[in-house]
Amino acid sequence: MSIITASTISTWERFYRANFINCLSGYKPVSLIGTVNATGQSNLSVVSNIVHIGADPALIGYINRPRKAAPHTISNIELTGVFTINHIKPDFIEKAHMTSAKYPENISEFEATGLTPEYIEGIRSPFVKESNVKYALHLREIVPIPLNDTSLVIGEVLLVSLDEGIISSDGFLDLTKAESVCSNGIDGYYSTQRLNRFAYAKPWISSQQID
Amino acid sequence: MSIITASTISTWERFYRANFINCLSGYKPVSLIGTVNATGQSNLSVVSNIVHIGADPALIGYINRPRKAAPHTISNIELTGVFTINHIKPDFIEKAHMTSAKYPENISEFEATGLTPEYIEGIRSPFVKESNVKYALHLREIVPIPLNDTSLVIGEVLLVSLDEGIISSDGFLDLTKAESVCSNGIDGYYSTQRLNRFAYAKPWISSQQID
Repeated sequence: MSIITASTISTWERFYRANFINCLSGYKPVSLIGTVNATGQSNLSVVSNIVHIGADPALIGYINRPRKAAPHTISNIELTGVFTINHIKPDFIEKAHMTSAKYPENISEFEATGLTPEYIEGIRSPFVKESNVKYALHLREIVPIPLNDTSLVIGEVLLVSLDEGIISSDGFLDLTKAESVCSNGIDGYYSTQRLNRFAYAKPWISSQQID
Repeated sequence: MSIITASTISTWERFYRANFINCLSGYKPVSLIGTVNATGQSNLSVVSNIVHIGADPALIGYINRPRKAAPHTISNIELTGVFTINHIKPDFIEKAHMTSAKYPENISEFEATGLTPEYIEGIRSPFVKESNVKYALHLREIVPIPLNDTSLVIGEVLLVSLDEGIISSDGFLDLTKAESVCSNGIDGYYSTQRLNRFAYAKPWISSQQID
């Protein structure tokens, strides 16, 4: 094992450091965020820095990069109050990654990448038709993080669209069956294999496996 | 595909809802957080709600549950200003999960689960010896989230300990080689398989695969 200190990291070239630090925090729940602007034009953006905040109320957040680097998704959310998050399957990881390219402002990433917008009654923002697990959130709070000019955007679950066959009897979702991928770093996409589920842990009692 | 609305979710039994919502946000970078209290007693806690915040400065955060439910880790971090985050390998997922049990206050989860504390010069909080990828953070900010009484605890990377063999020439970390696991929901642990890496995306140009 090697020890790397902050002072060494500070000397690294920018992209090397970005790759390293983005991997250091571990695997990420990479997904596509769908929004619309004032004229109804859709926007689709691959985001990996998504975090579960709580189950009751059902709150999920993501870190929006500094506004000058990533202005569209966050301003669309502020304007309409609603956004969708769509899991990614292996057969469209390349299209999902391509949503990160800087297209001209009048081009929707759906059109540019060939992913299909899907509208569900009552939700103004588009879902990704190709996705097996997707949900809409209404904006609850944008928490500024002045340390690096990012924001934690928090939404509350409004609606979920998925195949009921992936829901276990206790509410657990079989994301392997849904083919959801995870990511590592800025640009690595991974499939998963389930190792185990363990029951609620009690002191000094070996944890029972579930299923 | 089935549509499930917020009003349906609100009728669900508490544990069913917690399983469902915790899975909905996708795979998580599950890790062990190591801290010490004022008397030097170590604490180890499995945490999955970790999020990358930025690479320069290198900021990583996690969502601390409401203090009345999870008081020790956050108060140790406030007291000492330093914590470690340790990736989990398949051969100790059960021990990692067992750190979530409510042991008496004078018992360290290291002692209770059989994981080995490892101290590195200059870092007051313990690492997990069994872990292949681990890092220390110094506290930069605790952001309260009044919506559900949780907190976003943000640290800046102080030191990293890993096998240099997992670092690619561009700084990317091979977490499959490191055997890091991810999680799904509250209690599901997964290994991963790399699908692809894609180069920086440019409009309308097929994204090059890396490696």
